[in-house]
Amino acid sequence: MAQIDSDRVLADLRHLATFGAYKTGVHRPTFSEEDIAARRWFRGRLAEAGLEAEIDGIGNVYGRTPGGGPKVLTGSHLESQNHAGWLDGALGMVYGLEAARAIGGGVEVAAFCDEEGHFGSFIGSRSFTGLLEEEEIDRLANRYDATPLRDALARAGLAGVERRRVEPGRHRAFFEAHIEQGDTLESGELKIGVVSAIVAIWQYRIVALGEQNHAGTTSMARRRDAGLAITRLLGEIDRRFPGLAGPRTVWTTGRITLEPGAPSIIPGRAECLFQFRDADPAVLDRLDGELRRLVAEGGRGRCEMTLDVMGQSRPAKMDERLQEVLATAAERRAPGRWLVMPSGAGHDAQYLARVMPAAMMFVPSIGGISHHWTENTSDEDIVLGAQVYCDAVEAVLKG
Amino acid sequence: MAQIDSDRVLADLRHLATFGAYKTGVHRPTFSEEDIAARRWFRGRLAEAGLEAEIDGIGNVYGRTPGGGPKVLTGSHLESQNHAGWLDGALGMVYGLEAARAIGGGVEVAAFCDEEGHFGSFIGSRSFTGLLEEEEIDRLANRYDATPLRDALARAGLAGVERRRVEPGRHRAFFEAHIEQGDTLESGELKIGVVSAIVAIWQYRIVALGEQNHAGTTSMARRRDAGLAITRLLGEIDRRFPGLAGPRTVWTTGRITLEPGAPSIIPGRAECLFQFRDADPAVLDRLDGELRRLVAEGGRGRCEMTLDVMGQSRPAKMDERLQEVLATAAERRAPGRWLVMPSGAGHDAQYLARVMPAAMMFVPSIGGISHHWTENTSDEDIVLGAQVYCDAVEAVLKG
Repeated sequence: MAQIDSDRVLADLRHLATFGAYKTGVHRPTFSEEDIAARRWFRGRLAEAGLEAEIDGIGNVYGRTPGGGPKVLTGSHLESQNHAGWLDGALGMVYGLEAARAIGGGVEVAAFCDEEGHFGSFIGSRSFTGLLEEEEIDRLANRYDATPLRDALARAGLAGVERRRVEPGRHRAFFEAHIEQGDTLESGELKIGVVSAIVAIWQYRIVALGEQNHAGTTSMARRRDAGLAITRLLGEIDRRFPGLAGPRTVWTTGRITLEPGAPSIIPGRAECLFQFRDADPAVLDRLDGELRRLVAEGGRGRCEMTLDVMGQSRPAKMDERLQEVLATAAERRAPGRWLVMPSGAGHDAQYLARVMPAAMMFVPSIGGISHHWTENTSDEDIVLGAQVYCDAVEAVLKG
Repeated sequence: MAQIDSDRVLADLRHLATFGAYKTGVHRPTFSEEDIAARRWFRGRLAEAGLEAEIDGIGNVYGRTPGGGPKVLTGSHLESQNHAGWLDGALGMVYGLEAARAIGGGVEVAAFCDEEGHFGSFIGSRSFTGLLEEEEIDRLANRYDATPLRDALARAGLAGVERRRVEPGRHRAFFEAHIEQGDTLESGELKIGVVSAIVAIWQYRIVALGEQNHAGTTSMARRRDAGLAITRLLGEIDRRFPGLAGPRTVWTTGRITLEPGAPSIIPGRAECLFQFRDADPAVLDRLDGELRRLVAEGGRGRCEMTLDVMGQSRPAKMDERLQEVLATAAERRAPGRWLVMPSGAGHDAQYLARVMPAAMMFVPSIGGISHHWTENTSDEDIVLGAQVYCDAVEAVLKG
């Protein structure tokens, strides 16, 4: 069985963290100078590993093995969230690279561009799997500084460069390793998470329309307070959802806006962004139905209330045979210290799963922290995870 | 008894509405060009009425009667809220002017600057009553465009101009007329409101501190969701306050802010601006106590919760004898169609009440609307109100 080189794995991760270093983490937004430099460096590492490596027209770094025979695709993403951690994405990239080096021929590696969504939603993996049209590329822009994606691609030297698409039948499987980003593994003193499915995210904008008025002269009886209507709705959700949710369902109100937002004015309009996530379609449908019922009920009060669906993705089931392969590798290297669990966050694997058997593996996040520069995983866990990952890739490649 | 000139009252109000005309209302922020022009025009009207008129160093327009004898002070404010109504403030100014014209000597008129708070809080009436220090003037700036108050005063030609202070003992009373801004009079088919007191406003900033985290990977059990903590607190207020409030108490959440405010991030910090108003100190104390109890209880959950007092004004009781004078005048001109009621909004009279007996009188607001360009009162009600007002001023002056 192929043995990974622990020092090489850690050294590559640490080198990658120098691109956009920020405190103990990194700030490496998609197509920033640091990100482009990181992509070029990673392409070089792939070439050193004997892969035919290129950066394609959407910014994906793709290393292919010359010659025939069975192939497994590995990878994740290279860019980071703003002022975020050094391992989110990078870990999966270096695991893939190390598997290619340790196992040799047949292991291909892809860094899917902009998984972190600085420009769009999974544009790298959607491009690779044939789900990204040119028109969408024309339309997208950086969400922070409004730079058009086309301009960013041109600055990265990628204008007019071909986009690589998956070749049907080329790969036996896709493997993505990632930090867990939660504390399930850590709190259970576990080392490996075998991902059963990537949850769906159902996201809504809920708007209440009342009547803006003077907060001193308008009696409580006469008010049509849109803010109060939204507060009451969120209270009902808080009371009702626990009884309807699955064991791992999560639901979140990320934003509440009252208009005009002045202390002495009764809000005439209120809006909230609300989402829930689960891997089970039955749970998703149940919560969606309850939410619609509560909004309709709220809208029969003094304010109108409407619900807009912002997104309803589908859960992405990971391949069952690949889950077994990962479980076998985990049990061999960390007996009894692994868990089958869903991923509450979205990952490129959810798109890859549409075109080939896909698998995801988690390593523990210290304190469950992610999307923050303090994000970390112990060296020991990083190394153990790399070996489990390599074992699983090898088992599929040679199986 | 002095008879008002209805046409003159309406003509002056309509002329005043040409300064910053906006749709059927006005946009006349403090020290805008239109506002300065309105002040100068009004000073001219006071001079035509035989008053010694000036604009003082804080922008107050002040018309004094030459000679001795009893004096009554009348007035309100000239500037408007942004894109707001033509009568808010203006009505009280023209009523004062008309009383001075109809009654003759002894009626003085003051327009207190910036009652609408573009730069500060009641700076005109606080200056007049000795409650505004130079240091505060140095510090204040326009809340929308950050222009320092000193610069605005200089542009209005008022730099270095003396600020007028009330002369103790000079006035028997202060009278302020205003549109009601609510619908109590209209819905009761009443014509005149005799104000018993101006309510106190107790205003708070409530902050919940939790832990910002990933909305997909953080289990419900592990979350410390600051937004949820605030939502639950507001739900408790909604349940508890009706049982503790007085018949006219109002309470309002004007703003809720979740940070960072992204759909997929659990808010680590949440803030709301909350206020209640009542004229009864016992009610105010009861609600304050309950709010503190609920915040303390909320803070024993998963989030820390703190409450900052932004302001706790005191209710300003209107003078009882003056209320009787107004009631007598109202009963004479509109028998059975007047009401003693508190003012839910703040007015300059609350500061004048600290230095002399003060009275306020309301006329109906169509649809209870104010702080909006559709604000209006029927000509008939405007004229009736002017006569009641004039009668009351005259009764005090000659009583």
